[in-house]
Parts: sequence; C-alpha cells; structure tokens
Amino acid sequence: MKALRFVDGVLGVLDVKRPGPDGECLVRILKSGICNTDLEIVRGYGGFDGTLGHEFVGIVEQSAEKPELIGQRVVGEINVGCGRCSVCKTGGARHCPERTVLGIKGRDGSHAEYLTLPTHNLFPIPTNVPDEHAVFVEPLAAAIGITEHVDIRPETKVAVVGDGKLGILCARSLAIRSRNVVAIGKHAEKLALAEKSGVETVLVRNTGKLSARFDVVIEASGSESGFAVALDLVKPRGRIVLKSTFQAKPRLEAWRIVVNEISVIGSRCGRFEPALAMLANGSVDVSDLISEQYALTDGVLAMKRAAENGVMKVLLNVS
Amino acid sequence: MKALRFVDGVLGVLDVKRPGPDGECLVRILKSGICNTDLEIVRGYGGFDGTLGHEFVGIVEQSAEKPELIGQRVVGEINVGCGRCSVCKTGGARHCPERTVLGIKGRDGSHAEYLTLPTHNLFPIPTNVPDEHAVFVEPLAAAIGITEHVDIRPETKVAVVGDGKLGILCARSLAIRSRNVVAIGKHAEKLALAEKSGVETVLVRNTGKLSARFDVVIEASGSESGFAVALDLVKPRGRIVLKSTFQAKPRLEAWRIVVNEISVIGSRCGRFEPALAMLANGSVDVSDLISEQYALTDGVLAMKRAAENGVMKVLLNVS
Repeated sequence: MKALRFVDGVLGVLDVKRPGPDGECLVRILKSGICNTDLEIVRGYGGFDGTLGHEFVGIVEQSAEKPELIGQRVVGEINVGCGRCSVCKTGGARHCPERTVLGIKGRDGSHAEYLTLPTHNLFPIPTNVPDEHAVFVEPLAAAIGITEHVDIRPETKVAVVGDGKLGILCARSLAIRSRNVVAIGKHAEKLALAEKSGVETVLVRNTGKLSARFDVVIEASGSESGFAVALDLVKPRGRIVLKSTFQAKPRLEAWRIVVNEISVIGSRCGRFEPALAMLANGSVDVSDLISEQYALTDGVLAMKRAAENGVMKVLLNVS
Repeated sequence: MKALRFVDGVLGVLDVKRPGPDGECLVRILKSGICNTDLEIVRGYGGFDGTLGHEFVGIVEQSAEKPELIGQRVVGEINVGCGRCSVCKTGGARHCPERTVLGIKGRDGSHAEYLTLPTHNLFPIPTNVPDEHAVFVEPLAAAIGITEHVDIRPETKVAVVGDGKLGILCARSLAIRSRNVVAIGKHAEKLALAEKSGVETVLVRNTGKLSARFDVVIEASGSESGFAVALDLVKPRGRIVLKSTFQAKPRLEAWRIVVNEISVIGSRCGRFEPALAMLANGSVDVSDLISEQYALTDGVLAMKRAAENGVMKVLLNVS
C-alpha cells in the first residue's frame, strides 16, 4: 500500500506492506487530516520515524474481536496503552508510559491506505456527519479537552491566542460554554472564521488594552511568542492552557508566574464522544476550515502547502 | 535612622529620615531576615530602589487607628493593596494592581530601624515565639501558601526541589500534611536539616530512578536547572509549584507540559495566621535554620554572606 512516511529525516510517499491486524482492527482510510504536529515532526519534534497522520476517517475491514464493526465508518482515539499498568487500569491510556500514539510515537499513522488500532479505540460515526467533518473529530476532541482541566462557565473570560486550525476549533467549542470568548491572532482573514461563529476577535498587535483581563487564556498559536502574549493577557491567579506541541523551547519568565500566582496547564488530547456529538448536532461547524484536499500520492506537496501561511486544514483523500 | 538601601544599583547602609506613619503604624524593627529575593533584587530583579527587607519582627510604637497595638510585638503581611479596587475588596491585596510590597515594590522595607505598615497588615506574636523564630513567619507563610493552590493529603507524593531556606521550610511544613515528602538538593549538609524533621532526602544527582514518581513537585531551588529537575520528577497530570522569584528565564520545554498534561502553578505568598500557629505549637522548628546574625550597620557584609554557598538564614539585629 501507499503511505506518507517520515524516515531518517526524509519525507516521502512509499510503497509499504499493508499492516496485518495482529489482534487489532484493520481500517481502510477514506480521508486523513494534516495536523501541525505532523509538520513539527518533520521539523524534528518527537523523534518519530514512520507513517505520519493521526486525524482520519475510515472503514473497518477486519475486526476479530467485534465483527459487527466491519463495514462501519469510524474515527479513532490515537493513544494505545499497554492495558496492563495502573495508569491504563484507571482509564488513562493517554498517559501510559508504554503507550504508542498513532503517527506520533511507535505506531504507523493514518496518512496511508490502511492502519490498525485496537477495537476500543474506534468510534462509529453518526450517519449525518460527512467524512469531511468526521476527520475533525480528533482535533475537536483535543480542543474540548481543555474543559477537562479548567472550568469554563458562561461568565468566564476566555482568550484564545492563535488563529490557526486549533485556535479556531478552541474558540468555537469554548464559545458554547462561555459568552466571553475573544480570539486573538495575527491574521484578520483567519480571525474572520472565529467571528463567523459569534466570537469577538482582536489582532494581537491591539491587545495592549486587554492586559490582565482574562480568567483563562488558551495558548494555541504553536509559536514562541504566543506564550508571552498569554502571560500578558491572563489575570493574577488566572490560568493559561498550553495546547500546542512544538519543538521550540520558549524562555519562561518564571517570576511572572510566581508573582501573579498563575497556573500553566498542559492539555493534549480529549474525549471523542463529545466531539462526535457536537459535529452530529451541528453546534460546531468545521466545513469552512478545509483549505485544500490532495490525493495521498501528493502527500509531500500537501504537507508543504499545510505549512504555508494562510492555509488552514489540508486533507488527504485516500480511498 | 539607619537603613540598608539599594539605590541606583548601589547597596549601602545609609542615614535616612525616619518614616512618618502617615495613617499607618510605625514599627521599630527588632530583627530582619535576609531573603533570596533581596539577593535577586541586588542582581537586578524587579527594578526596586529603596530599603530592602520584608521578613521582620518589631514593636509597634505608633498606631492612631488601633492604639492597643502600641507596645505589641508584631510581624507584618508584606502586600499593601489600594483598598478600593475589586481585587482588594474581595480580599486579594496580594494581587492588587496598585499594590506596594514591603522592600520589594514601591515601599521601603524592614532592613532599617523603622518601617510603617497599615494596621491590618500587622499580626501580634504569641509570647512563646521568640524573636529569632518570629522572623520566619513570612517565609513560612509563603511555604504554607502552597496548600492554597494544591491539595496535599497524607498519601500525596511530594518532592521539594531545593535545599535552601525556602526548600527546607516547604519540606517541613508539607511533611505535616503528607507522609510522602522527599527533599531533593545538591548539598548533603543542607538536606540533613530536612532529614532531622523526618523527611526523606535524595541528592539531585541520584534522582534518575525517581522520574515521573511525584504527584506534586515544589520548585524552590531558585535556579534555572531546578525547573528541568521538577519536570523529570512529576507524574503525567501532576503539578509543579513554582516558589522562587528570580531574574533568570529558564527555557521551557513546553511540549513536555502539553504531552504529559502537567500543571505549573505559581505561588508567592501565604497567610500569616497558620504560620504563627505552627511556630507557637512547635510543629515546625526554625531555630536550626539561622546561620549568622549581624548588626544592621554590617548589612552589606550580611548580604554578601547570605549569598554564599552553604549559608542558610542570615538575620540583621536592629534594636
């Protein structure tokens, strides 16, 4: 089968052996979304070698454990725990020290014709959610994952720093809980996507007057400067949620965190069920976030485009 | 009166005018403790110009508002809010945007013969707490302040990184709540002070086997490397509490915070009442933390000694 692989520092579409399910389910990929984490891996983040991709929609072709899944359209939770350790036994595969992560750590990903995942990682998709929307379940779940760490109420003042794909998904999903969400970014045309969903927007160069105004600031810019902006915006005793995984190591003004008694909270993934529900009931729209779609065989070009300014989600059409 | 002042980048004991109380209480200083924050200010932290010092015990000489305080031995909360803003009105003078802070921000400190503070900042000291112990109320309150931010239970696994004055106070006060406190530092002779109070100790070079073991890690080393050690020690979804204010800006491995969904929580000050109670009932001993005592007139030498390796608390005897 074809797969978009990053091996020994080289990105390319290669012919590789189709994976045997080996006790897992075999999934034929329909569409796979390019995430900033894919781009960071190619820049050296995480030391991953293998097939990229962790946002997908596909059809189950083999499932020894749960044959009724065969033929179903599914999305998949990306963390696979060992299933034996105390972390896994308390439901925490996301933090199992022996975990593999689809297309990120020790496990080939979804930019390929097929992948395998354990049965319990797969979630059937409601019929009214088209493939183009379903491929957003993983990043939308990650956005909603913020609410596992911080309480967002109608009156909570929330700023989302970053107007990329993840930032817009965060702003849209948090605006369901709070009526005080402000999206902050460098690009008026991207911020317009947040505005469409009723979120106030401010260009980052105009945020001086918003200093120390927010209870919660989401850092979703994936850039070194985003953290400094977040520190300016957050109230004393407020919370900054870090969403982006990136290779750079920003300088931490630790004294500001101490003096203002701020909490900086890392948030990676989230639960799939509420994300599927939001797409099914239409409370979060994602259709306007797709910039371009490419064939898997054009995967290298697709990755290049995804890294360019102004480009939002790029999808690979696999089958 | 004499005062140890840091003005235009120069540290010296100067003759200055005794402060008029101006609606506050006038306090004659008995003893004043040198804190690492004083040393950091002299290295450029915070841009403070004035009389240093914020850990003191003194006698109230004037108090128009509450004459019954006159003659009483007191310690003092260091933050003075405007009293009018919404932050102050909800009890948060610590985070009032207009606040002054004794010997740190906009207000002359306690390394002097006299200071003034508002009536409600002063706390009379129980008679069984000697001056040498009372001068530790402010840093002990800061150590206990950790429990305002994180829940510490008997089974909570806590590591304290840093074997200086603040680290030892953190270890001793947290060991009252948790039976699983480990103090980690570079100096066996300083760690022995934590051991004395029943806390397990580990040299930082031997912490490899403790990776990802702790629910809560207190970073009290005041050094750039301390944060990296804390990141190694904390469990996924665990909490790092930053206690030290220092000028350096350590590089933040933001991706580790995101991937392991860690919370980094700043904690500066704490409430004086529980610290006074702990000293009065003897549950935390501080007498063995005093390295040396100097006359105020030898304040420059005292600051120099306080910055040297192996030296714990240095006190200034004022009157």
